[in-house]
Amino acid sequence: MIFKFIPREFNFFDLFEKQVNFAVEAATYFKEVTQKGVVDEAAIKKIEDIEHQSDEATHAIFEQLNKTFITPFDREDIHALAGQLDDIVDMFNTIASRLNVYKITRIDKNLIEFAAVIVESVRAVAATVKGMRNIKNSKLIAQYCVEIHRLENVGDAMRDKVLAELFETEKNPITVIKWKEIYEDAETVLDICEDVALVVDSIVVKQA
Amino acid sequence: MIFKFIPREFNFFDLFEKQVNFAVEAATYFKEVTQKGVVDEAAIKKIEDIEHQSDEATHAIFEQLNKTFITPFDREDIHALAGQLDDIVDMFNTIASRLNVYKITRIDKNLIEFAAVIVESVRAVAATVKGMRNIKNSKLIAQYCVEIHRLENVGDAMRDKVLAELFETEKNPITVIKWKEIYEDAETVLDICEDVALVVDSIVVKQA
Amino acid sequence: MIFKFIPREFNFFDLFEKQVNFAVEAATYFKEVTQKGVVDEAAIKKIEDIEHQSDEATHAIFEQLNKTFITPFDREDIHALAGQLDDIVDMFNTIASRLNVYKITRIDKNLIEFAAVIVESVRAVAATVKGMRNIKNSKLIAQYCVEIHRLENVGDAMRDKVLAELFETEKNPITVIKWKEIYEDAETVLDICEDVALVVDSIVVKQA
Repeated sequence: MIFKFIPREFNFFDLFEKQVNFAVEAATYFKEVTQKGVVDEAAIKKIEDIEHQSDEATHAIFEQLNKTFITPFDREDIHALAGQLDDIVDMFNTIASRLNVYKITRIDKNLIEFAAVIVESVRAVAATVKGMRNIKNSKLIAQYCVEIHRLENVGDAMRDKVLAELFETEKNPITVIKWKEIYEDAETVLDICEDVALVVDSIVVKQA
Repeated sequence: MIFKFIPREFNFFDLFEKQVNFAVEAATYFKEVTQKGVVDEAAIKKIEDIEHQSDEATHAIFEQLNKTFITPFDREDIHALAGQLDDIVDMFNTIASRLNVYKITRIDKNLIEFAAVIVESVRAVAATVKGMRNIKNSKLIAQYCVEIHRLENVGDAMRDKVLAELFETEKNPITVIKWKEIYEDAETVLDICEDVALVVDSIVVKQA
Repeated sequence: MIFKFIPREFNFFDLFEKQVNFAVEAATYFKEVTQKGVVDEAAIKKIEDIEHQSDEATHAIFEQLNKTFITPFDREDIHALAGQLDDIVDMFNTIASRLNVYKITRIDKNLIEFAAVIVESVRAVAATVKGMRNIKNSKLIAQYCVEIHRLENVGDAMRDKVLAELFETEKNPITVIKWKEIYEDAETVLDICEDVALVVDSIVVKQA
């Protein structure tokens, strides 16, 4: 019967952990796929599956949010955080589906590099989200947020470099269109990770 | 004199109905235009007109929201809903204006198919918005939300299919750029419809 | 000692003025650069510098917001306003960095025209933001908001005109991709200015 006395809102931490684990799973698998160098039907299917599960985890948070009167931190922060964590997983699905639509089966070295930076950033995101359970982690969280910000800058520079290369060396405009979009999508994952860091940072500051 | 006793906030339902009717009008007219197969100055002008009227309806909701202390549901939900309904109408204007800028006068069969799915989704959106007047409609609203979600998936699959076709068969890169954007815009209308469904769903859950 | 009695929240006006001054600085410098017709490393560096300073000013507002219990106007309005003012400065950085990545060193007359309209709009934005200090300025603010809206329409028409020209006259698809994006970015600055005007307008209405 003890459960009755545990405030419902603590549940949010479990829900966020579940959700962020899907982001880590998607990022890790995406890195694996790029390193194998081949995107096939099975890979696309698996990323889609993770995305569906992440959708459900996100929906569970929104539902809980709508039903809960007292929340562990600001409602709009919970809403933003859940939405952004889901956006991370969505982006892997977007990239996989674009590779499929564009009939790109061979991954290039640039996307492999992006995938490696992305997995680092998503792991840091998971660390900040999991750290929120305890306000004593605030310094550690701050360090992870700095790291996520650094990786976003790395991603910006990578994108600019690979786009400059693409526009200078690739003579087929259709190929330029395809890869330009994929590199930009890859960088967008890092942007969303930074958005998460900003929300987590703001949550921690408010609790301090 | 009885009007004095009717709470001001009930007005919101009228305002939302007015606004969503412009979305239905735009979607229906867009479908008509695509089926005729020709986008001329008159068609573009008419879509622009609907967009201006929708803008005014949206502005009226924002104004009322700023002046009203007690609202029938959460302020941020009202704000999001009004913004998204206006975004739907804006997208028809964006598509029409793009067809004009790109000097595309002949509509292709893919856009005709998109327009048919879009009008279905926008009608379902209107049904959910109108249903919000009465909490007893919550089951019906839930059904429409499921339908809007289904149509968004249909749209995703259509977009992937037509883009794959476009990149495989069209040899003129300029033509690829043009149609790629138009198909993506068409799919975006269905995305926004789904955003509306999520907000309406969240409003209904909170009232339950 | 008198400072102790000045409510902390008044600080927000100073912070917003500081922030919006970076937007004016970036817009003015961008116009200057386009008129000289050459974007070099030094120009890109300077725009980046302004962007970093704007980031810091934005961060200071978010931090203050998280620490302050009573704010001069709605928290979400403060958050939206600070975010959008920073987005304006970000866009100049985006455009400069794109010109760099695409190895475009010669500015065309269209971008010069855009830069002239943008600087007008950003100055009007600064006037509305600075006007917020005193509710007596509400009529003046309303006039500036109308002007910002007018300039956004001017920008829409310009973008459509220059894109139509680009697609009709430019035969190199890679060049089309590059300039299409730059013109669209330029128009986006005017869109964000309009978003600011909407938030400021809503703040003023709520205080009236």
